[in-house]
Amino acid sequence: MPSIDVCLSPLLHGLFRLEGKVAVVVDVLRATTTMITALEYGAEAILPVDTVEQCLEFQEQGYIGAAERGGKVVDGFRFGNSPFDYMTSDFTGRKIVFTTTNGTRTLSAIKEAEVIVLGAFVNLKALSLYLKKLDRDILVVCAGWEGQINLEDTLFAGALIDQLIPDFHISGDPALLSHTSYLKVRENLSGYLESSSHVRRLRKLGLQKDIDFCLTSDRFEIIPRLSDGHIVRS
Amino acid sequence: MPSIDVCLSPLLHGLFRLEGKVAVVVDVLRATTTMITALEYGAEAILPVDTVEQCLEFQEQGYIGAAERGGKVVDGFRFGNSPFDYMTSDFTGRKIVFTTTNGTRTLSAIKEAEVIVLGAFVNLKALSLYLKKLDRDILVVCAGWEGQINLEDTLFAGALIDQLIPDFHISGDPALLSHTSYLKVRENLSGYLESSSHVRRLRKLGLQKDIDFCLTSDRFEIIPRLSDGHIVRS
Repeated sequence: MPSIDVCLSPLLHGLFRLEGKVAVVVDVLRATTTMITALEYGAEAILPVDTVEQCLEFQEQGYIGAAERGGKVVDGFRFGNSPFDYMTSDFTGRKIVFTTTNGTRTLSAIKEAEVIVLGAFVNLKALSLYLKKLDRDILVVCAGWEGQINLEDTLFAGALIDQLIPDFHISGDPALLSHTSYLKVRENLSGYLESSSHVRRLRKLGLQKDIDFCLTSDRFEIIPRLSDGHIVRS
Repeated sequence: MPSIDVCLSPLLHGLFRLEGKVAVVVDVLRATTTMITALEYGAEAILPVDTVEQCLEFQEQGYIGAAERGGKVVDGFRFGNSPFDYMTSDFTGRKIVFTTTNGTRTLSAIKEAEVIVLGAFVNLKALSLYLKKLDRDILVVCAGWEGQINLEDTLFAGALIDQLIPDFHISGDPALLSHTSYLKVRENLSGYLESSSHVRRLRKLGLQKDIDFCLTSDRFEIIPRLSDGHIVRS
């Protein structure tokens, strides 16, 4: 039976083997939710980059640039890290170059994985079906916030585990903790996440609409997958 | 109102400020449980050191040496990391030099804290009363296992938080996760911890008696505290 394990902070990547595994990258608020949304609305591909400078370079080469730091659109860019920025046909067939505070940096750190896909509540059910079909060991890689473990990514890991058992076995204490926490709060996930440090941070920025969107399950069936450095539909 | 925050892995220490705070070091299985027990049974002081070599050096200077790696007593030492090793009057008034896989190393990494005390289920209630009296911001520092987050230290953090609220406010997502997980499993803590990777590791070594001892709350009222590099009774 394949296993599912969870890395709760990018600072803990070194503790996990990635070779041969499926890495599920999670940044519920908001990078992975937003990238799933952009592909759903027709974007052809998303190039995740670490820095704003790289973002500018690729913009000059014809990509649509999108950059977020600290929850805000970076000065000089039209698009940031809100899923609502991408709910338009403007992106149809276009490539986006994207940098965010946490999510895109996480992607660049886990390249040894066999398959890299993106997860968020908006594609939870579809993702779990996809992972069951792949039938390989999984590492859920939570983006966290500047190295710190966060509630929403941890609870997403727990929700995914809940979809995958008993076809997968829970491997390791962080995965058990994620699942246990999820079981405790799943009846009132949004209410519980009111206490999350990142939810409070985003609410201060007037982004309640984004929070509500990001915490709703099963809006889309897109499974974004990393291929040749770009994120594309599987 | 003072705050309580939790660092779930030694690899995450850098994310937390320690200045002016009380650090509660936790290695439930078994280092902090064992050190609390040794002081309860009369040891005068415990000198935590990082390496087996340092342990040998201080042994030559008259300390009683105790060393554990990978759950076992290190070759050449009589005492390891089992609380049962210390339930004798042999240690009365003696100093112990002690090195363990995870717990003692954690102690050496958090020296900037204002006050450093040791916690485990065996002194949970007494510790919470002590912390309420101190009335300062707290960081619970979990030893984990070779950098990895573990269930038992995380759940102890949650149990301690449960004793301290509402006199302290829960600060940060890792503290919320610890408390939420604890609330989910507190009615059957030992049963739940059967799944913990470290419980399984210790059981394979024939240490079920140690596990049962370490997971029982409120055996002792000792609050070990770091003073001049040694752990002594407060």
